[in-house]
Amino acid sequence: MDWQEISGGVTAPRGFRAAGITAGLKASGLPDLALILSDVDAIAAGVFTTSQVRAACVEYCRQQLAVKPSARAILCNSGQANAATGEGGWEDAIASANSLAGALNIAPEAILLASTGVIGQRIKMDALIAGIPRLVAAAAPDGGDTAAKAIMTTDLVSKSIALEMMLGDRVVRMGGMAKGSGMIHPNMATLLAFVTCDAAVSTTLWQQMLGRAADKSFNQITVDGDTSTNDTLIALANGESRTPAIVQPGAEADKLEAMLTAVCQYLAKSIARDGEGATCLIEVQVSGTPTDREARQIAREIAGSSLLKAAVFGHDPNWGRIAMAAGKAGVPFDQNNLAVSLGEIQLMANGQPLAFDRVAASNYLKAASQGEYLKTDTVLISVSVGNGHGTGIAWGCDLSYDYVKINAEYTT
Amino acid sequence: MDWQEISGGVTAPRGFRAAGITAGLKASGLPDLALILSDVDAIAAGVFTTSQVRAACVEYCRQQLAVKPSARAILCNSGQANAATGEGGWEDAIASANSLAGALNIAPEAILLASTGVIGQRIKMDALIAGIPRLVAAAAPDGGDTAAKAIMTTDLVSKSIALEMMLGDRVVRMGGMAKGSGMIHPNMATLLAFVTCDAAVSTTLWQQMLGRAADKSFNQITVDGDTSTNDTLIALANGESRTPAIVQPGAEADKLEAMLTAVCQYLAKSIARDGEGATCLIEVQVSGTPTDREARQIAREIAGSSLLKAAVFGHDPNWGRIAMAAGKAGVPFDQNNLAVSLGEIQLMANGQPLAFDRVAASNYLKAASQGEYLKTDTVLISVSVGNGHGTGIAWGCDLSYDYVKINAEYTT
Repeated sequence: MDWQEISGGVTAPRGFRAAGITAGLKASGLPDLALILSDVDAIAAGVFTTSQVRAACVEYCRQQLAVKPSARAILCNSGQANAATGEGGWEDAIASANSLAGALNIAPEAILLASTGVIGQRIKMDALIAGIPRLVAAAAPDGGDTAAKAIMTTDLVSKSIALEMMLGDRVVRMGGMAKGSGMIHPNMATLLAFVTCDAAVSTTLWQQMLGRAADKSFNQITVDGDTSTNDTLIALANGESRTPAIVQPGAEADKLEAMLTAVCQYLAKSIARDGEGATCLIEVQVSGTPTDREARQIAREIAGSSLLKAAVFGHDPNWGRIAMAAGKAGVPFDQNNLAVSLGEIQLMANGQPLAFDRVAASNYLKAASQGEYLKTDTVLISVSVGNGHGTGIAWGCDLSYDYVKINAEYTT
Repeated sequence: MDWQEISGGVTAPRGFRAAGITAGLKASGLPDLALILSDVDAIAAGVFTTSQVRAACVEYCRQQLAVKPSARAILCNSGQANAATGEGGWEDAIASANSLAGALNIAPEAILLASTGVIGQRIKMDALIAGIPRLVAAAAPDGGDTAAKAIMTTDLVSKSIALEMMLGDRVVRMGGMAKGSGMIHPNMATLLAFVTCDAAVSTTLWQQMLGRAADKSFNQITVDGDTSTNDTLIALANGESRTPAIVQPGAEADKLEAMLTAVCQYLAKSIARDGEGATCLIEVQVSGTPTDREARQIAREIAGSSLLKAAVFGHDPNWGRIAMAAGKAGVPFDQNNLAVSLGEIQLMANGQPLAFDRVAASNYLKAASQGEYLKTDTVLISVSVGNGHGTGIAWGCDLSYDYVKINAEYTT
């Protein structure tokens, strides 16, 4: 890896400020309004939910980025998702952008929006509008961490990261923050992720890089197979690193894309690990397919199997469920080539079960559930389905009683 | 409906006998070997798992039916799935068929096989072979119910049905039995269903009817989104009703297909209701799509949503999750046309939430969880997404603590 981890989250790159405040949108009194602000126009790329039921803020961002792929600011509220809120919800989105534009003295077109919270609830606009001047005043070059906290709903931990590396003879930095997968208050379910970068890069390349990075990160995690109405990933690049502009594919572009992928994967893994009721992270590595796409598809199918997830929670080295899940991914392969390992323990080869130390395998699962967040709490499942060169990784978490408990509680 | 329900299960149609015995394949000592026998050659149609990892018996049936779509007998064992058992498992399948063929004095090609149980375990062949003479001797014209019991694994109830109706001036009968969705001993997960019929119908029509019936029944149920290595649906028609042969589409063929669909739907609903840990049946009716296929797709996506299933378990009328699940089905629709009802209570219209009696809605869910099996224990969710003429139904069950408990227990 060419980069090293630094502190600061989304404000680590030069020319970015951020803030998070309690505007009064959440009943809990916890921070609920976040701002990411670039000192200059940043090029902006976005990836959004594929759902047919999309929040007003998602529609708003899609329209803005289609007209002009650049932005100065991202405003994100938690508490209300502003999804399935009809015309009124759309007007709230416009009003939010206009209010922030006025406070920043910039054009409303330079603002992107995101929301997370209860579906079908309108944003508490009085509180949001009243909070905006305070939010703008709070925006600071070290505000990344407070912004990351203000977009949490029922996440147990806030999720942010920053990396830096040399590009030519200058330092380029990238920061990211995300939320997702907590759900104590039913109806909440959203993945939001924001990446900042001070590299200079062309709009087209940046959007392509983000799409590919999303395919290898956020599109490869699963907690419960349910897709939110509000899923949003936005990446800003403002050029403030003064590194040479990257305008075509090549070694420099590859380095930047690798860094972007690393940031997205870190955030994606953080979300999977913080899945509702989860006791560990599950990483599924698949190889042997003709292309990477097919390997990713099988990996995600395995990571999403309820039966496998429950077995991991029960520390049960139940390899039959891994074979079952691989088989149903819709990717053709010869079952006589199937091989499965759990950590270092091989469970299956040539499509047939191997004798293995069941107690050691169970202890491996037990150790993961007692491990340290994102460090030693990972269950590694390796699957090979043939001789192809394709590889892919997916991440998920186990299925525990708490998942049911969290999601069965009354809204009322 | 043209038909009425009668007793007898798979032996209700003329010319069928059946038996179920304890051969000693299961440690529990419960019945574990079943036989369905037609007095004469019956045409046979089959629908099998789409998984890339398929049990030996599935491969065996696919090959047999490809060569000659007829059969005299179906042999089904529970206890071991004979999946992921390699060459040895294939030899076990051949030996099972040969043994039964010898006892019945018919060709091995006239026998179809099915297995359910632990993946990766070979069938206890000594016990099976020793049991076959006893099984053949026990085959009786009233043996449908004992056969239905012998294919259970951890099902809480056995599942069988029989219908009869007039076709021309003669009575035609159809019977069915199925198992699925119980899973106390991990690694077990199989849907098996067998239909018998004494109508005379052409092979081509019968296979077409079965494919369409499966699409409206077994392919529309979901318990946990996991597809078994052994899923098998076989339908036999032996002509013993002496009704005129149905050899082309028309009113008679439509009547028979409607009856076949009814049998398949009854069995499919029985399996969904008996899903692991389930407290109720969830029926999702979708309308307003361009074609039926799209409606079925949305219905199944909603019935399979973990979040919705957990909400139903918690008696939480959480309509946002229904909208979310509809949106992620991969079927395009205008979210402003979305309407959602729970029983008689309308929750959402024109893509926006309605005010509704939350207590009444919660009580509706509560009543279902206390209702009688397959009678008053159904939660009805109706969704409309537009003005098209397509309709579709799917069935599922709620997600409870017991689902996690059942599947987190140790195999060892």
